[in-house]
Amino acid sequence: MGPPVLATFKLTVAYDGTDYLGWQVQPQGPTIQSMLERAVTQITGETARVLGSGRTDSGVHADGQVAAVSLAGWKHDAESLRQALQTKLPEDIVVWRAESVRGDFHPIGDATEKLYRYQLQLSGPADPMTARYRWRLRRPVDADAVCSACTHVVGRHDFSCFEARGAPRADSVREVRRCELMIAPPTNRGRVLADLYVSADGFLYNMVRNIVGSVLEVGYGLKDPDWITELIRERRRENAGPTAPPHGLFLDRVSYE
Amino acid sequence: MGPPVLATFKLTVAYDGTDYLGWQVQPQGPTIQSMLERAVTQITGETARVLGSGRTDSGVHADGQVAAVSLAGWKHDAESLRQALQTKLPEDIVVWRAESVRGDFHPIGDATEKLYRYQLQLSGPADPMTARYRWRLRRPVDADAVCSACTHVVGRHDFSCFEARGAPRADSVREVRRCELMIAPPTNRGRVLADLYVSADGFLYNMVRNIVGSVLEVGYGLKDPDWITELIRERRRENAGPTAPPHGLFLDRVSYE
Repeated sequence: MGPPVLATFKLTVAYDGTDYLGWQVQPQGPTIQSMLERAVTQITGETARVLGSGRTDSGVHADGQVAAVSLAGWKHDAESLRQALQTKLPEDIVVWRAESVRGDFHPIGDATEKLYRYQLQLSGPADPMTARYRWRLRRPVDADAVCSACTHVVGRHDFSCFEARGAPRADSVREVRRCELMIAPPTNRGRVLADLYVSADGFLYNMVRNIVGSVLEVGYGLKDPDWITELIRERRRENAGPTAPPHGLFLDRVSYE
Repeated sequence: MGPPVLATFKLTVAYDGTDYLGWQVQPQGPTIQSMLERAVTQITGETARVLGSGRTDSGVHADGQVAAVSLAGWKHDAESLRQALQTKLPEDIVVWRAESVRGDFHPIGDATEKLYRYQLQLSGPADPMTARYRWRLRRPVDADAVCSACTHVVGRHDFSCFEARGAPRADSVREVRRCELMIAPPTNRGRVLADLYVSADGFLYNMVRNIVGSVLEVGYGLKDPDWITELIRERRRENAGPTAPPHGLFLDRVSYE
């Protein structure tokens, strides 16, 4: 008899990150990963790592985070695992899909693209129902200028200028495939909502929040749209705009082959 | 010198009702009215009643609750009052409009119509970002049958069948002007969202939540659409469907002359 055969499951997870210290297990308090690992242990009796497609920061949300877990003793199908896990999770973490995958599936290494969405309210009165999920701007912003600035982000570049300080990587080159502000028609209370979508083959630490902070500098009229190109060329974080707050950010989708 | 001249303000208020014991001041804990009255006192030093257009229950939300307050000492304009109040309110209560009105303005007596919205998720996976604001149904529901049932609610009727037990009124006749299920196109995660709008010249206690529970009996295939007509004619609460939970209900708008 050889070692136990592990069954590997890919989980697609949505969460409201407001009350968690991000994805990754932390000694200081609950995280999405720690809640999932606890649920796995409660269901199966096994201690298993739940590996994510990437860390989301404290307060960041997800519609489509992808995670993987390998279990020695689960004899049922993926949907049964999903349902069982959900019974052990709070309402703000939802495993909405589970699939059986090959044993060497890796949520980071196998990902071909990630899509983030940053939710903004450009104008109009505050909305208590979206305060946890949408950054409301307090200054007038020129949406056309933001759209124009976004076009300069797209492409294969060294994005050091949008990487958090103190998080150096061997390689800061990424390919941004989409950077686009989608503006919704005004709501009946006069609120103008807009979502900024950024997709890439990978992201540096804080990259989306720094892109948002920088294209808004253009939207506020402080910079011209092609300042973004200059910023990328100069590769200096201190030249970029401020980091947008976490509560507007959603990990929307992770794509695999 | 006569008594001080009171200035009366009409406030339009949005709130996330999740963490409150409804609108009306309660000894057991915080309510929307108590938070507003506290903010008024903090700003003006005056103790004043903030009168609402109607009570919302514990856990019920509002986009457009209307309230009125009369102050003896406020020397500034309505917008200044709004901004000052907002600095004393938590993020889940937003006064998004303030207007000067005549001293005899009464938010209940002067209302000509109220519109409620009940937010449903008909199918698809749970969404942690809407769990506080939308009732997710766990059984298949025939939306066309619900739409058909809704048409039978419209009209001037004695709505005793939809009034909470133990809340008798002298007059249970109300005119429902609109009762309509609006179904949104499926989201990209396969969720089907629908909002049930009910407007009337006035509402009985728990009326909207009882209407929702009853038209869903039709949607589940347990009753025919014209059972609603029978229900209204019989005027017996015990024949109607169960009361829908509070967290899907929004006071959308209150209209005045």
